[in-house]
Amino acid sequence: MKKSLGARTVLYPTPALVICTYDGEGRPNAMTAAWAGICCSSPPCVAVSLRKATYTHGCIGARQAFTVNVPSEKYVREVDYFGMTSGRKTDKFAATGLSPERSDAVDAPYIREFPFALECRLVHVLELGLHTQFVGEIVDLKADEEVLAADGSLDVEKVRPILYAPDGGSYFGVGKNLGKAFSIGRRGS
Amino acid sequence: MKKSLGARTVLYPTPALVICTYDGEGRPNAMTAAWAGICCSSPPCVAVSLRKATYTHGCIGARQAFTVNVPSEKYVREVDYFGMTSGRKTDKFAATGLSPERSDAVDAPYIREFPFALECRLVHVLELGLHTQFVGEIVDLKADEEVLAADGSLDVEKVRPILYAPDGGSYFGVGKNLGKAFSIGRRGS
Repeated sequence: MKKSLGARTVLYPTPALVICTYDGEGRPNAMTAAWAGICCSSPPCVAVSLRKATYTHGCIGARQAFTVNVPSEKYVREVDYFGMTSGRKTDKFAATGLSPERSDAVDAPYIREFPFALECRLVHVLELGLHTQFVGEIVDLKADEEVLAADGSLDVEKVRPILYAPDGGSYFGVGKNLGKAFSIGRRGS
Repeated sequence: MKKSLGARTVLYPTPALVICTYDGEGRPNAMTAAWAGICCSSPPCVAVSLRKATYTHGCIGARQAFTVNVPSEKYVREVDYFGMTSGRKTDKFAATGLSPERSDAVDAPYIREFPFALECRLVHVLELGLHTQFVGEIVDLKADEEVLAADGSLDVEKVRPILYAPDGGSYFGVGKNLGKAFSIGRRGS
């Protein structure tokens, strides 16, 4: 018999991502977001939910674009910092030493040091309550060659992404390979 | 200099989740979904995107409810199977031996053997293209006592959730604890 824990926003795994934008003056900004996920295969779209109070919320509205940056675990301190400080008052790139690279696909920067980024143009805005959901069409994906597998796919074990555990509030790395999808669950005929 | 890989739906980590519903005749169904994430803290909401062709798509429309079930890695074969077979023709619970438990919070079942489930009532439907995004308000969360930490939070290392790597198509477990959120990124004053 399961225990009722009440209405709680817990899902495992939840990603730890960094959303990058330019503000109205063209200054690059970065903030950490966990309420996010791919939401459509065709057109390829990703959804990111942000509180209205965040600086990034206004930047996405102004520029109609953002990037979703997937960090490696070695940048876990920077990721945590990006989630605690507002770009309104602080140049977070200067503070961390990370580099905003101008996207050639959308009006937003991505982080040079992170292994890959989704470059998105805003296609839907859904007001949900405390959070606004921004749906971006993925226009391009930029990645470091070093994190690609031999077949050109993004190798999770090279990317080493960060999981965020909303309950308990900790970050985790990726563990062992459990098997091939659309394969290990196949039943005998 | 990063390499352009084109528009691709890759985000790490991506969850491997199982969505449960009743159909029009009250038969329980389960399907695997990876295009999902928490999308609002208040009201607590989760978004799940499904292709129109899936049986679950129609079930959510009919019942206006679903559950999001978080599996443990020991069920990775069942999770993979749930993503390869349609509930239109197959009773997936009978095929796997897993048990549909009737939710007392919404008109949908959850999986008894999985560590926890979010019970959701449908609040928004967004047509995006190949996928429809269903936003559910989380009415309750049901969990096994065994996966709770001493403070009552859901312990990731006890839940042992499954990550899905869309690029390459493999499942992964959770790795090592990288540190406390809202803490390890704090800068000296």
